[in-house]
Amino acid sequence: MMNRINVNLPEQSYEIAIASGNLDNLGEQMSSLQLRKKILLVSNPTIFKHYGERAIASLKAANFEVVSCTLPPGERYKNLNSIQKIYDVALENRLERSSTMVALGGGVVGDMTGFAAATWLRGINVVQVPTTLLAMVDSAIGGKTGVNHPQGKNLIGAFHQPRLVLIDPEVLKTLPMREFRAGMAEVIKYGVIWDAELFAQMEASKNLNQHRYVKPELIDSILTRSCQAKADVVSKDEKEAGLRAILNYGHTIGHAVESLTGYRLVNHGEAVGIGMVAAGQIAAELGMWQKEDTQRQDALIAKAGLPTKLPAGVDIEGIIEALQTDKKVKDGKVRFVLPTQIGVVTVTDEVPSDIITAVLRGMQG
Amino acid sequence: MMNRINVNLPEQSYEIAIASGNLDNLGEQMSSLQLRKKILLVSNPTIFKHYGERAIASLKAANFEVVSCTLPPGERYKNLNSIQKIYDVALENRLERSSTMVALGGGVVGDMTGFAAATWLRGINVVQVPTTLLAMVDSAIGGKTGVNHPQGKNLIGAFHQPRLVLIDPEVLKTLPMREFRAGMAEVIKYGVIWDAELFAQMEASKNLNQHRYVKPELIDSILTRSCQAKADVVSKDEKEAGLRAILNYGHTIGHAVESLTGYRLVNHGEAVGIGMVAAGQIAAELGMWQKEDTQRQDALIAKAGLPTKLPAGVDIEGIIEALQTDKKVKDGKVRFVLPTQIGVVTVTDEVPSDIITAVLRGMQG
Ligand SMILES: NC(=O)c1ccc[n+]([C@@H]2O[C@H](COP(=O)([O-])OP(=O)(O)OC[C@H]3O[C@@H](n4cnc5c(N)ncnc54)[C@H](O)[C@@H]3O)[C@@H](O)[C@H]2O)c1
Ligand SMILES: NC(=O)c1ccc[n+]([C@@H]2O[C@H](COP(=O)([O-])OP(=O)(O)OC[C@H]3O[C@@H](n4cnc5c(N)ncnc54)[C@H](O)[C@@H]3O)[C@@H](O)[C@H]2O)c1
Repeated sequence: MMNRINVNLPEQSYEIAIASGNLDNLGEQMSSLQLRKKILLVSNPTIFKHYGERAIASLKAANFEVVSCTLPPGERYKNLNSIQKIYDVALENRLERSSTMVALGGGVVGDMTGFAAATWLRGINVVQVPTTLLAMVDSAIGGKTGVNHPQGKNLIGAFHQPRLVLIDPEVLKTLPMREFRAGMAEVIKYGVIWDAELFAQMEASKNLNQHRYVKPELIDSILTRSCQAKADVVSKDEKEAGLRAILNYGHTIGHAVESLTGYRLVNHGEAVGIGMVAAGQIAAELGMWQKEDTQRQDALIAKAGLPTKLPAGVDIEGIIEALQTDKKVKDGKVRFVLPTQIGVVTVTDEVPSDIITAVLRGMQG
Repeated sequence: MMNRINVNLPEQSYEIAIASGNLDNLGEQMSSLQLRKKILLVSNPTIFKHYGERAIASLKAANFEVVSCTLPPGERYKNLNSIQKIYDVALENRLERSSTMVALGGGVVGDMTGFAAATWLRGINVVQVPTTLLAMVDSAIGGKTGVNHPQGKNLIGAFHQPRLVLIDPEVLKTLPMREFRAGMAEVIKYGVIWDAELFAQMEASKNLNQHRYVKPELIDSILTRSCQAKADVVSKDEKEAGLRAILNYGHTIGHAVESLTGYRLVNHGEAVGIGMVAAGQIAAELGMWQKEDTQRQDALIAKAGLPTKLPAGVDIEGIIEALQTDKKVKDGKVRFVLPTQIGVVTVTDEVPSDIITAVLRGMQG
């Protein structure tokens, strides 16, 4: 069964195609986009070992000419040096404006490939083939691309929409457990900000913390509903002028926690889990959200095997300080996305900093 | 007298404001754009020494908060290292999404500042204050930004439109003669591809090869008509899907010559001059353009003090080879912009390579 979700954008719309075994359809699916034949596939060695040959075989069967390049894995290589490596391979193989880069990997590979494609020859085609849960439901969709500055995450980047997002749920089988959980943080986010039904489906599941314990039908629903949520929001606000900000639910404090722990101790999804717990409690403190709903949310986060406390030793003053360098700051005021009921959030920059401090104190592990 | 030209674009339109003494109006002109107060002014030491203080004073008088950074001058520093310097200053001074970078300089400063602004926080505002003739009539308008790859010019870049282009013709007084001539190459280009009246005005002028020998009224006309030509073309085709390609008249062979001479011996405008002579002769060889018109064009190029011959020692095979790495290649075919009459050009990828070779042979110095 193939689920297709459309991301409608004024300049160029594209599809998210979800199906088991889809990796073997990559070439065929790309054929209908009328791309030129030259493809640069970007991945990392781990992912390439698992899925690289299949992706390439599928592309070649559809008459594409494929070269590939792998980048060292991990957030710490998400920088301009890695981008330069992609540029070098692009030059060596004479990619043209009408050529295509294919990102086969998680958010790190996807963000970098997207940025390289956005900036090579002022923008060439990119196709996203996400292999982590997080990349499937979040980073591969919506056109945000970028790399880190030594002093801050995702400070360098561009908007560049893919021509296609191709998802094969089967590849989640090899995904490390911790990465699965990290992706679940974003899925829970969609439940809280957009889709109460998705939230309820997850509440009804006995297990959420490992891929093999979650029923395939629920995985299907998680992927389809999450992608639909992201597509809805992005279609309404491509460049983050307004609505799209709600996707940052849990990310304001999350980013600060990630950056303070040097992007190592806590991964992105875990940080978002912590950030959602904090945001929920801030909303409750401000009387915007019911206490029971914060508890339902926190229980779901815990069931997904995600932390609900700050990692030991994280300095609360440090978090407050880090919030100030966040991209979402406007005239020095920190913007928060806060829930008002399950499935609905609002955006505010009127959170007193003593409330932030108090909530964070209560979350110390 | 203030001349205002509108660049009409679907997402964001902007003005080109041309007036003597305009540099002192920078702050005031920017005030009406409702930008936030933080400004990062980017320049190079030479230009900054001449005009930096005046630009900053004008911005401060309009209540902007200004920090500045200068980059080493010259095409060879138009690279990602310089971009990283801009990023560092942006981070240090906590530029926000609604902050603005101001490019005070020629095409090198403008292209780099534009690219940094395009990619910092996925895109912040940029205002272009061009100080060379080339930047005024060409690079500051239209949103092409970028840097060089060690092996090719402008291979890395993005489209990012400025919020305002502010031109003060007075600053041309300090521009080195060779740079003035380089700008004249682009002006002559507009005459050939778009504006026969501009071509005729220049033909009627006794001198064209030094700023101080050209009447102020002709300078005014050159700036206004050239900016109008560029604005017209860009408004009709922002992302170079079609029409905009005509702006590459003279650039196909021009880029190859530049790259073969290591971007040193021949500057951009000189290379374009050579490229226009070559394109004109190719058009004549193909029977598309009258011989007399090629002669009128070549005479104008010579009157502007620009070369009409290839620099000694440039290898013709090398040029043919370099054409293949050009961004304008599609499926291995080189695209040429060729004139059919003065003020009108057409685009073709059907130029037999023996004609290119023959024309280049005839242009050996
Ligand atoms: N662009 C966006 O809109 C957006 C949104 C959210 C997050 N992000 C970015 O995404 C990044 C995080 O992405 P991520 O969580 O996917 O991490 P990741 O890309 O680092 O992948 C996590 C790990 O899983 C491995 N892996 C990936 N797929 C696998 C598979 N199928 N089988 C076995 N191993 C596999 C990878 O090698 C890596 O070690 C961050 O840099 C974040 O900034 C971007
Ligand atoms: N973005 C575009 O659409 C576009 C179009 C054409 C060219 N370009 C780019 O523009 C660049 C060339 O720009 P350029 O010709 O302006 O060269 P440039 O920016 O290197 O400036 C030329 C020299 O003049 C000096 N200078 C500048 N203004 C001065 C002034 N008023 N008084 C005294 N000295 C001054 C500079 O310091 C520099 O040494 C190339 O990199 C080219 O790729 C871009």
